Amino acid sequence: MTNKPFSVTVGTVTRELPTIQVGEMGRVPLVELIGDVEFTSAVADALRPLLPPETEVMLTVVTNSLPLTHALSERTGVPYVVVRKKRRTYMRDPLIQEVPSMTLGVNETLWLDGRHASSLKGKRVTIVVDVVASGGTVEAMQRLVDRAGGQLVGCVAAFRQGEPKMPVRYLQELPKMI
Amino acid sequence: MTNKPFSVTVGTVTRELPTIQVGEMGRVPLVELIGDVEFTSAVADALRPLLPPETEVMLTVVTNSLPLTHALSERTGVPYVVVRKKRRTYMRDPLIQEVPSMTLGVNETLWLDGRHASSLKGKRVTIVVDVVASGGTVEAMQRLVDRAGGQLVGCVAAFRQGEPKMPVRYLQELPKMI
Repeated sequence: MTNKPFSVTVGTVTRELPTIQVGEMGRVPLVELIGDVEFTSAVADALRPLLPPETEVMLTVVTNSLPLTHALSERTGVPYVVVRKKRRTYMRDPLIQEVPSMTLGVNETLWLDGRHASSLKGKRVTIVVDVVASGGTVEAMQRLVDRAGGQLVGCVAAFRQGEPKMPVRYLQELPKMI
Repeated sequence: MTNKPFSVTVGTVTRELPTIQVGEMGRVPLVELIGDVEFTSAVADALRPLLPPETEVMLTVVTNSLPLTHALSERTGVPYVVVRKKRRTYMRDPLIQEVPSMTLGVNETLWLDGRHASSLKGKRVTIVVDVVASGGTVEAMQRLVDRAGGQLVGCVAAFRQGEPKMPVRYLQELPKMI
């Protein structure tokens, strides 16, 4: 077990990821794209070729994946829709989806505003996240795509850090524990 | 009282903002930059000249202001730091700040990770948000800048929708009630 940062390189950008203690088991590297335009841009550039070309809408989730998906949308012209983790007062007829299992044993609920759900209907949808771990959140997002009447064509993640059940295209594997 | 959308133009981009019912008093136009790269880019372009040129770090807050601040950082090269509204497990020595008053009577707490607080220390900081209303959140962010040892040089917002106590540079005024 070590406190040393974990080094990651995407394109020409290298970051020393801080590691955080998880329980008493060990440490995990922490990806933080928020606040880091240079790294976010490098990741978006690298992720772009992994996006299925038939994608008509990207679906992401607050909060950490937000600048990345924005940057990817900027590069591809493909619009994106955001799933929230709290009910917003302005939502109309939201789709509500429980996340099946959480690593930390905390229950989480996803909210997709009805206005946004209708923009997935009949569309080819790719899920975009920064990190996929157990895949619970992505699984709930897949259910949302389905319930909204969209057609899921792929899941892409910058990093894989665990064993998700569904196929995911990703740039790099991160250790789950160091 | 009407259900008609409220039209806003920034640069060459026009959006019909949906309006949402607030209590029994009336409706307010809802700004949503998330998921809208074209509008976010237009707002960032327009906001750029309002950013005090001496700014060394921008401070923003989750969630709606995130793509805008990312876009502004992309354009200016000025880095940004994000205040969260929930404690994250990875935070170390976070600064915790109550939002003094909330429009809806809900108490809110802001969290600034210690790592990020230290990146404000001794720096000229500008607060960036999408919408400033009563100014409670911005006031709490000002306190955070102060407590982190930063020097506040300005507050910029895309839209003003209320009567904040502090001076704010903004693009347009939105009606508080229609």
